[in-house]
Amino acid sequence: MTRTIVASATREIIIGFDQPFCVIGERINPTGRKKLAAEMQAGNFETVIKDALEQVAAGATMLDINAGVTSVNPNETEPGLLVQTLEIVQGLVDIPLAIDSSVTAAIEAGLKVAKGRPLVNSVTGEEEKLEAILPLVKKYDVPVVAISNDESGISMDPDVRFAVAKKIVERAMDHGIKPHDIVVDPLVMPIGALGDAGRQVFQLLYRLRNELKVNTTCGLSNISFGLPHRHGINAGFIPMVIGAGMTSAIMNPCRPQEMEAVRAANVLNGTDPNCTNWIMTYRDHKPAEAGATASAAAAPAAGGGRRGGRAARAGGGARAE
Amino acid sequence: MTRTIVASATREIIIGFDQPFCVIGERINPTGRKKLAAEMQAGNFETVIKDALEQVAAGATMLDINAGVTSVNPNETEPGLLVQTLEIVQGLVDIPLAIDSSVTAAIEAGLKVAKGRPLVNSVTGEEEKLEAILPLVKKYDVPVVAISNDESGISMDPDVRFAVAKKIVERAMDHGIKPHDIVVDPLVMPIGALGDAGRQVFQLLYRLRNELKVNTTCGLSNISFGLPHRHGINAGFIPMVIGAGMTSAIMNPCRPQEMEAVRAANVLNGTDPNCTNWIMTYRDHKPAEAGATASAAAAPAAGGGRRGGRAARAGGGARAE
Repeated sequence: MTRTIVASATREIIIGFDQPFCVIGERINPTGRKKLAAEMQAGNFETVIKDALEQVAAGATMLDINAGVTSVNPNETEPGLLVQTLEIVQGLVDIPLAIDSSVTAAIEAGLKVAKGRPLVNSVTGEEEKLEAILPLVKKYDVPVVAISNDESGISMDPDVRFAVAKKIVERAMDHGIKPHDIVVDPLVMPIGALGDAGRQVFQLLYRLRNELKVNTTCGLSNISFGLPHRHGINAGFIPMVIGAGMTSAIMNPCRPQEMEAVRAANVLNGTDPNCTNWIMTYRDHKPAEAGATASAAAAPAAGGGRRGGRAARAGGGARAE
Repeated sequence: MTRTIVASATREIIIGFDQPFCVIGERINPTGRKKLAAEMQAGNFETVIKDALEQVAAGATMLDINAGVTSVNPNETEPGLLVQTLEIVQGLVDIPLAIDSSVTAAIEAGLKVAKGRPLVNSVTGEEEKLEAILPLVKKYDVPVVAISNDESGISMDPDVRFAVAKKIVERAMDHGIKPHDIVVDPLVMPIGALGDAGRQVFQLLYRLRNELKVNTTCGLSNISFGLPHRHGINAGFIPMVIGAGMTSAIMNPCRPQEMEAVRAANVLNGTDPNCTNWIMTYRDHKPAEAGATASAAAAPAAGGGRRGGRAARAGGGARAE
């Protein structure tokens, strides 16, 4: 059974097919968040701290940490800022972190200070990336996210994306890195632009699980890009990818609809034994607050538990022939 | 490609792997609804009419019609009442119906009056049932739901449930009924009582689709029996069974959370071309009304579309190395 071990100073988490889905909180990332970028550049970590605490409270398993505040001289500025951010977050919360940067020097600086066993995010199939990142992954004995694109970009052919993932796994093995320390991102395209995006990912996940036997992750909300009511698409996508074998995702744990989908899928996938986490989370749930939407027809007052017909009948039960 | 054709007076619907998920509205069923049973016995069809209209408005693909108001002398009373109910509903709405009864005489009476091509609900692997129902299915050239239990009850072993389904398909073929007219119900157990219930169904669906090549259905809400916030479990289960190959379910279409899960899964499964149905349904969706729950952490104000980080990076995009 494939097990990727990540750890904070004192807590170890296993990513695996028989484990609860690993939710990697995405919020500490200034990409596209101008205010956060400006704050971090000014040495103000208030939002970082708030985002760390909120994501952990919302149920994140890990936190992704990105400090890419600028495209100007990131090689000079990003390592120091990433180290500072990592140290603040790991001083505050005790869950494993992902060191997220496209700057190799920042990744290495982060690896030097991170406690436990962080996840490196990420390597791709690009030659330059492979040669820069894999030696670090080996040196620090950590797992790494492998994004299945290379110099030619992202292929629209899932077979090519699988081949890129396979190449990265093989190249990692050449460096002495075990496949269980590679977490493949098969790349999720927006379903609004590519109608086949869902089925592509489901097929890729099946092959990654059964042929490469690796854990997997993705930038989850990409799937709903450009569509109305994105949370509804995301919340439908989560159980489907979990059912198809995905074991983690980089996502926003502060979205109740998405986290509910994660918790339900854990129950249904058998990774929430005795439904303990579900029951603890929702035992006081009030039906009136459940996901009613403006567009759907009014729901009748009676609850979902009212009808025993099919169960009773199938059991050979209540009704005479 | 397996296609089960059902029809009302003028509308034909295909149940199939490449079709939108077929939602069979469950509400017109007096089992466990004392008030409805009393009304129907008194010849009052107000609730039946309301339930028919509401389910169609909410997006049901078909309606299940059950008139089992009593366990006393159902052989005498049920055929007439089922005929009356069917005639009222098919006079009101123009979508295909499922004739749902455990009384063979009621099924036959229903088949005599139903317009189009109704679905018979159901036959089991019980010898007496097979010999009673299959000749009717052949005579009226209609599809039938095959529930995978037999005289020995419901097996907890999914391999036995598969074997029962296979036996029904084979026996139907002996009667000249094609496998594409058998819609197998693999039987869904409550996940709260049987932690393996989800994975059992996913495995069964895979085999039913790939080995028997049949369409499938289930009494969907059974999965969440006994748990708090059942709609959340149901809404997670729907995308998982659709991803695993289920093509229809008997469920309550008047529940917005469950129908949203159906619509999202159709988008992701590629059966809502260009996301047309999703966009039409949710284009005016207001995020504030989305499924916020009492138990989860407060969601930040920013919407889900804000972050382009991963997509941008994977595309080789915005940030310098």
